[in-house]
Amino acid sequence: MALSSATINTHVKEVEYAVRGPIVARAGEIDADLKKGAGSYPFKNVIFCNIGNPQALQQKPLSFPREVLALLTAPELLEHPKSAEVFAPDALTRAKVALPKMGGTGAYTHSAGYDWVRQTVASYIQARDNNAAGKELGPADPNAIFLTNGASPGVQMTLQCLINGPSDGIMTPIPQYPLYTATITLMNGSCVPYYLDESKAWGMTTDDLSKAYDEAKSKGITPRALVVINPGNPTGQVLEPAAMADVVKWAHSRNVMLLADEVYQENVYAPGKTFRSFREIMLGLGEPYSKEVQLASFHTTSKGIHGECGRRGGYTEFINVPQDVMDIFIKLPSINLCPNLAGQVMVDLMLSPPKAGDASFESYTKEYNDIYQSLKRRALLLVDGLNKIEGIRSNAVEGAMYAFPSLKLPSKFVDEAKAKGKPADTLWCARLLEEQGVVVVPGSGFGQVAGTYHFRTTILPPEEQMADMVSRIANFQKSIIAKYGPVEA
Amino acid sequence: MALSSATINTHVKEVEYAVRGPIVARAGEIDADLKKGAGSYPFKNVIFCNIGNPQALQQKPLSFPREVLALLTAPELLEHPKSAEVFAPDALTRAKVALPKMGGTGAYTHSAGYDWVRQTVASYIQARDNNAAGKELGPADPNAIFLTNGASPGVQMTLQCLINGPSDGIMTPIPQYPLYTATITLMNGSCVPYYLDESKAWGMTTDDLSKAYDEAKSKGITPRALVVINPGNPTGQVLEPAAMADVVKWAHSRNVMLLADEVYQENVYAPGKTFRSFREIMLGLGEPYSKEVQLASFHTTSKGIHGECGRRGGYTEFINVPQDVMDIFIKLPSINLCPNLAGQVMVDLMLSPPKAGDASFESYTKEYNDIYQSLKRRALLLVDGLNKIEGIRSNAVEGAMYAFPSLKLPSKFVDEAKAKGKPADTLWCARLLEEQGVVVVPGSGFGQVAGTYHFRTTILPPEEQMADMVSRIANFQKSIIAKYGPVEA
Repeated sequence: MALSSATINTHVKEVEYAVRGPIVARAGEIDADLKKGAGSYPFKNVIFCNIGNPQALQQKPLSFPREVLALLTAPELLEHPKSAEVFAPDALTRAKVALPKMGGTGAYTHSAGYDWVRQTVASYIQARDNNAAGKELGPADPNAIFLTNGASPGVQMTLQCLINGPSDGIMTPIPQYPLYTATITLMNGSCVPYYLDESKAWGMTTDDLSKAYDEAKSKGITPRALVVINPGNPTGQVLEPAAMADVVKWAHSRNVMLLADEVYQENVYAPGKTFRSFREIMLGLGEPYSKEVQLASFHTTSKGIHGECGRRGGYTEFINVPQDVMDIFIKLPSINLCPNLAGQVMVDLMLSPPKAGDASFESYTKEYNDIYQSLKRRALLLVDGLNKIEGIRSNAVEGAMYAFPSLKLPSKFVDEAKAKGKPADTLWCARLLEEQGVVVVPGSGFGQVAGTYHFRTTILPPEEQMADMVSRIANFQKSIIAKYGPVEA
Repeated sequence: MALSSATINTHVKEVEYAVRGPIVARAGEIDADLKKGAGSYPFKNVIFCNIGNPQALQQKPLSFPREVLALLTAPELLEHPKSAEVFAPDALTRAKVALPKMGGTGAYTHSAGYDWVRQTVASYIQARDNNAAGKELGPADPNAIFLTNGASPGVQMTLQCLINGPSDGIMTPIPQYPLYTATITLMNGSCVPYYLDESKAWGMTTDDLSKAYDEAKSKGITPRALVVINPGNPTGQVLEPAAMADVVKWAHSRNVMLLADEVYQENVYAPGKTFRSFREIMLGLGEPYSKEVQLASFHTTSKGIHGECGRRGGYTEFINVPQDVMDIFIKLPSINLCPNLAGQVMVDLMLSPPKAGDASFESYTKEYNDIYQSLKRRALLLVDGLNKIEGIRSNAVEGAMYAFPSLKLPSKFVDEAKAKGKPADTLWCARLLEEQGVVVVPGSGFGQVAGTYHFRTTILPPEEQMADMVSRIANFQKSIIAKYGPVEA
């Protein structure tokens, strides 16, 4: 057989991607059963908390961007005599302005995406960072911005360029979002883990970075890049500017590229915390850092307040990457011709929303704030609820869309998992699904300190379902303790 | 520097992708100059014939699918009191039926795409092949169908699974679509070329396949798969069922997987020719072929009559690939979470168009046929025109969207190209752009018999521009002959 599980590419075989792994596949089966009234389960519905997919959990899309996108999908609507009665006037204007720039609403674009959308991205970045810094940091370069189908392909293409083989290392936080380890495995590179400190609100220190770097070097691995996810996924922390400056200086000292996963930049909830980009911190430090540290920053339309996961919109911005490298890089998206149009347009709409005075400004702002405030409340509700459960302790969700609580388990349960050859948190999550219909992802899918257990859950169930979701987890943990004895200290 | 042209992944550096290469980049610059009235060029506009991008060349999108897609983009339109005055009734019905199946119009879907769209694909395949065979060939399996962002990612993921290293070969037609060589280079596999016979209407024979296979084996390369592009790109031929049956039997005898690039299945123009799928031929042959030959077939919304390139819709169908391989394969799209929604919906709409009796049936059919007939006329017009030019000879464009004429050049011109270190057809295409503003792709980007020269041009300029485009090429070739002397025999 030409293609069998024995002959298939070994790296493809090794890849693990827990947020869409076997527990999620099983949840899909159960959900399908329940929806057609088949099977017998001790719960009425499955609550999917495995993935940051807000609109699958009843979050409504923002209206304005959808109206513009609909008009650009069927542009003859712009000429329809009834359109003024159906669409907001500024949605019509916005679509009329965009239409001639698109060169056909069904054509391939430049491989890096529309130049006018990349210009919007550059303007957004510049305004965001000048505003945060309180000073002029200089322009962002639209030619160093590549639109992508969500953030993930940008990460993958960047890693593909950085990795030549196992001697190239990518420094990855543990816990991390599995996109990183999966891609490093696929590209046959080496993951160089550095640990976030759960006891210090999932903080990172340059001491830990140096330790990880040196250990890799001692094994013949050269770290080529440092991944920082801020706000954190799965860990929900928001970095302080002083810590970020330390990271930039450290990256400079070791000549590693900084890969800033900043897809949750709109999702900051903790009082007193704001999002600060690595670009702003780096440029703010001045030379040599501002001219010499190589940075790739990733963003998406899937998260934030839009939650437009299915559009697959996103971008990668490079700084201090020479033109000859970008001339090589562009060949990668070229092979797939171009990012999808709706995703590109959504990036434009997300980063250039209605302004004060526009017809949709008030309704857009209200929709936006309602979602933001609800996410903020849910972040608190969830952590409060989880922290009342015996054996479960979660840091505050300062940002992003997840809690990553630690999980203490009865020693007999841990032994049973060992006997089954499974990490204890994997067994726990699998049973939580079967007994309570709650889908969370085991900590082993993200990495954790050996001997500790965690799970990741999103904060996304609607507020009125949150109590139900927390009580299902509480009931399950209670049943585990009842059956297996008290949790380990 | 962490990421430089010296340290970047060597395979990324080596990749070539001519349809979006340096000539096309230069054409973009000139086009931008002309549009803003800058620069001085001996022509008024650039005619882009480098890529099959119909809607960039004024082809209008089909109305019905765009209406449905607009409704699913802004679903509140379905409830709007004026919507019946704006949208076709069957577009409204179609959207209303689809909406509840989407689980949120902005959510991630299953990594393989919506199950209901995969069901549409399976029904389409089954009906298409039963109809062509005139008999029941059995059902197509929706679980072996993966929706993708256009056809290209499906090809790339399949090749990624097949290739472990340079000892794994992929048999690729020469000339070929550069997606194949580019991906094989990226994955560090070996391209095993087999030649199409220009003198026999770009036909292929199993003798040529055997020769290529044996030569690869003698070099320690094991061919794992055979790529067949039908209708041909860049060569425009449409295979006969008898030749296809030979290919299936040959693939079986050598245990190679068949990769059928069937993205131009709607684009068949030659009298007496019809599209026949490799699935139909293979299943029609019965056992052992129907049960043992592994097949992947690729399709897209970008070509055909829809030409929805920017939507990035497509699918890969596997046959006789064991479930454990598909369980591994699915991890690849999972890393990117899911194909984009608009592309998925467009696949559904393309493969399940309005039916007789539906309100839009007549207008849809008229729009569809108008585009099809125009493509057919342009295929003839172009070949007729090209064949009147000294030194240029094109086979008939039986299908797809391209002509790939041979190019005879003055020996002094060939010498000059050699002195510049460029293939003669590359120099010819670069000068054709600078002097006449026509963008075509040199044959060296697709592969050709050594010592021959070709170029690829699409058949897509609007009919009223075709004469202008052909005459620009004729004038250019005349000027070359005037300057360098007569073409080689």
